Amino acid sequence: MIWHGIIEKYREFLPVGPRTPVVTLNEGNTPLVFSKHLSDILGVAVHLKCEGLNPTGSFKDRGMTVALSKAVEAGARLVICASTGNTSASAAAYSAKAGIGCVVLIPRGAIALGKLSQALVHGAKVLALDGNFDKALQMVREIARRHGITLVNSVNPYRLDGQKTGAFEVCDQLDGRAPDFHVMPVGNAGNITAYWKGYTEYHRAGRVKTRPRMIGFQAEGAAPIVRGKIIARPVTIASAIRIGNPASWKSAEAARDESGGLIGMVSDREILEAYRFLAAKEGVFVEPASAAGVAGILKLGKKKFFRRGSGATVVCVLTGHGLKDPDRALASAKKPKGVPARLESIMKAIRA
Amino acid sequence: MIWHGIIEKYREFLPVGPRTPVVTLNEGNTPLVFSKHLSDILGVAVHLKCEGLNPTGSFKDRGMTVALSKAVEAGARLVICASTGNTSASAAAYSAKAGIGCVVLIPRGAIALGKLSQALVHGAKVLALDGNFDKALQMVREIARRHGITLVNSVNPYRLDGQKTGAFEVCDQLDGRAPDFHVMPVGNAGNITAYWKGYTEYHRAGRVKTRPRMIGFQAEGAAPIVRGKIIARPVTIASAIRIGNPASWKSAEAARDESGGLIGMVSDREILEAYRFLAAKEGVFVEPASAAGVAGILKLGKKKFFRRGSGATVVCVLTGHGLKDPDRALASAKKPKGVPARLESIMKAIRA
Repeated sequence: MIWHGIIEKYREFLPVGPRTPVVTLNEGNTPLVFSKHLSDILGVAVHLKCEGLNPTGSFKDRGMTVALSKAVEAGARLVICASTGNTSASAAAYSAKAGIGCVVLIPRGAIALGKLSQALVHGAKVLALDGNFDKALQMVREIARRHGITLVNSVNPYRLDGQKTGAFEVCDQLDGRAPDFHVMPVGNAGNITAYWKGYTEYHRAGRVKTRPRMIGFQAEGAAPIVRGKIIARPVTIASAIRIGNPASWKSAEAARDESGGLIGMVSDREILEAYRFLAAKEGVFVEPASAAGVAGILKLGKKKFFRRGSGATVVCVLTGHGLKDPDRALASAKKPKGVPARLESIMKAIRA
Repeated sequence: MIWHGIIEKYREFLPVGPRTPVVTLNEGNTPLVFSKHLSDILGVAVHLKCEGLNPTGSFKDRGMTVALSKAVEAGARLVICASTGNTSASAAAYSAKAGIGCVVLIPRGAIALGKLSQALVHGAKVLALDGNFDKALQMVREIARRHGITLVNSVNPYRLDGQKTGAFEVCDQLDGRAPDFHVMPVGNAGNITAYWKGYTEYHRAGRVKTRPRMIGFQAEGAAPIVRGKIIARPVTIASAIRIGNPASWKSAEAARDESGGLIGMVSDREILEAYRFLAAKEGVFVEPASAAGVAGILKLGKKKFFRRGSGATVVCVLTGHGLKDPDRALASAKKPKGVPARLESIMKAIRA
């Protein structure tokens, strides 16, 4: 079948009708890659769902195609969002495709280079707020309410409807089975909510016989759900999950509890170790936040959480591409060595 | 069908056997997106083949999966390449996946930030040469020959075998038809050679009834094929095609001539206009070199090259993702405007 994006593929599960204009960049259909190294380490079959290969380089595109399609259907001429970067990139791209305006509010100085370049190049009006993500979200919610501008943060229910298709795809890619464990980073907590919704709907429709345990990880310095309280000043190198007051807090807890899962936390050091591990061993380059889930299962593995040889299947969602944050990669790597254009000098450098 | 990369999908057309170890990141299966704006402007159906959604963000992954699989089959422990950036990113990632070493020689100071970050994070040994790409290619060819290191530039024939699968996919996505015109940027000229090979093999196998005219574009300051002479100091903002002495020069000319196509050139200004057009109108963010093909057909359109309403199909290959070169996007966009955390200030900025 030729792929035309997640709305065409999963139409029956989505709140769209025959007259909804489909605003798509052919998102979805992302690779599920078997991880030999993680599987060997943990003794279970680990697959990586590479959501960084969506059109704007993150999972946000799944929700944005639905949110923008519904916005255009309703006659919107302008959308707005707060963002740590990935949402703004996606909102800007899909608004451009839809031919409508886009305003994004970002925390000043706190979003990765690649993501900022995307919002700008797609023509969004980018405003850098004196404040963090949580403040920016509060502001855009108020503006949307007062001025009738369409909000496309994940508090927009169409966003989560689109994002749940990630769960459908995982099940389809596993030949009609749900994984035993579904692992992912948790920031604003919309994505874990959406995946659980997806698994539940696929289960109810008889497409899969089971549902996975939902395993989420926050960064230690931005772990309101784990700590059970709002974090006024969230701190982590994983900018995409640097959120102290998640919009989908309650529904994330529900996903965790209904599935018999857990939401834990990992340190920035553990995140960066997992980040380097994925790039150096699996050839998969992700943004730091994406590595939180992998850091988490490595940590759980040390506690013998997974039963080695049980035949269990684990799917880790890698939420965004490493190219979103090239500065982080450069900061954590050795600089290139200069060489003159002479064979002997080059061979010497190779052997060094 | 579940996607397991281009080798599994197109095995019968590739030089692999049952015992070839498949080194894959599930490359290929990239979106073909209809471009409403280009189609309206040119009066023919224009589709964008978004090769930037391959695992490392460029079309190079198609060739690299075959080159690394064959290298591992032959027992190689080390591969080497010269690169303007995309090849090194791909070689580094697939070498990491294969568990073997990788050396890349880049022209000092002349590769985009994102690409450099990739080669480094995937653990390649990156050497920055005092010299341009053509010099670097000359050096690695010599080193590979003398020291028995596997060369994975496109002079490695397995690279082009992998890259030709892009043509197969286009035909499959067009429901078993080849496009009438196939448009792409031309740098080292391996890709146009590979696509023509792909269309020709699919045609010979009876999968399609026709073959397209091959239309390539070089940057004016790096247009050796158009000008009919080696360019000693190629100059263009499109770093991925900043090449003065293409390795696949003759075969690119053959593709052009056998197909009744053409290879033209576009200015950096035209490339940047097409780059901004794609981002702002189509929601598709590419690296500058990728926009050369689109700049080219816009130029041809002004000369009435395409017959409006003829029903012709045009496929433009967009070779790499815009996140490869975020600095270019930032340089060509307005900076974000700072705002205090007050509703009135934000509304004022939105309305400004």
